Amino acid sequence: MEKLKVVFHISDTNRWPILLSNVRNLVKDLGEESVRIKIIANGMAVLAYMPEPDNQRILRNVRELSESGLTFMACRNSLLGNNIDEKILPDEIEIVPAGITELVKKQNKGYGYIKP
Amino acid sequence: MEKLKVVFHISDTNRWPILLSNVRNLVKDLGEESVRIKIIANGMAVLAYMPEPDNQRILRNVRELSESGLTFMACRNSLLGNNIDEKILPDEIEIVPAGITELVKKQNKGYGYIKP
Amino acid sequence: MEKLKVVFHISDTNRWPILLSNVRNLVKDLGEESVRIKIIANGMAVLAYMPEPDNQRILRNVRELSESGLTFMACRNSLLGNNIDEKILPDEIEIVPAGITELVKKQNKGYGYIKP
Repeated sequence: MEKLKVVFHISDTNRWPILLSNVRNLVKDLGEESVRIKIIANGMAVLAYMPEPDNQRILRNVRELSESGLTFMACRNSLLGNNIDEKILPDEIEIVPAGITELVKKQNKGYGYIKP
Repeated sequence: MEKLKVVFHISDTNRWPILLSNVRNLVKDLGEESVRIKIIANGMAVLAYMPEPDNQRILRNVRELSESGLTFMACRNSLLGNNIDEKILPDEIEIVPAGITELVKKQNKGYGYIKP
Repeated sequence: MEKLKVVFHISDTNRWPILLSNVRNLVKDLGEESVRIKIIANGMAVLAYMPEPDNQRILRNVRELSESGLTFMACRNSLLGNNIDEKILPDEIEIVPAGITELVKKQNKGYGYIKP
């Protein structure tokens, strides 16, 4: 059976706890093997990827979930707009040229869309 | 002709008035017989389903719209997370194990997605 | 190759700068000729279409992007609800009877959905 596919869109930093809870519930409910999950952060939400003390809880979740097969993406336009050097981001973060483009392309390939 | 299908996602309590207005406009515009509408509440938004004085206006709308054929759902994870006993909720509320899973599955079956 | 198609949904006035930035990044990244972009404003977001000093920056962007082939729409229900006479809106704004209906119909025709 074909996997369910979903892309999560996060643009506000304060939505990260909700997004992570949503994603964990989805994985727990369906099992990692039956759903493909991508998380695309743009706007201010990319700030949470920076290796800083305040982000440790988020980044620990990002690392664990990446190891489970989920993909976390950052929009390069947003990184540039916030003066973030992408080289400082954790290795598991995938950089895409434009988060919005990725959101459109993923939906065009059958991904559902969720804005937590 | 096949019905249009749409799932509304609400996660913040304060979006209920906007969601209800959106839904009423959609029903008025298209007619109940030509659109299938499901509303999935997760996160704090499930608090509005509790039979409390502050929620009377919302719950009256939920009851009326349910009688018109719309389906209002509550995420069980969110009910548990907010210590809400699902037995106290109005009968017309449908409980689903995970609201997010439902949102993905519905889109996979051709439902549009709207976050009011 | 078929164009990518996407509908942006804006319901809060304060999301206009983010939406306009998202849309510009999408056009820059994909090129105007390979993506069809529609923006549907409902709720309070329609206030930004009024020809008032505070809206000049937004309206200049709306005009420029319309000339590039993007379509900006306003929900008539929302205009009525905010006592806005649609005759005062700039010519490039397309009025639709119900923004929500349009969002459902567009997704039904293969448009992706983005809520900035």
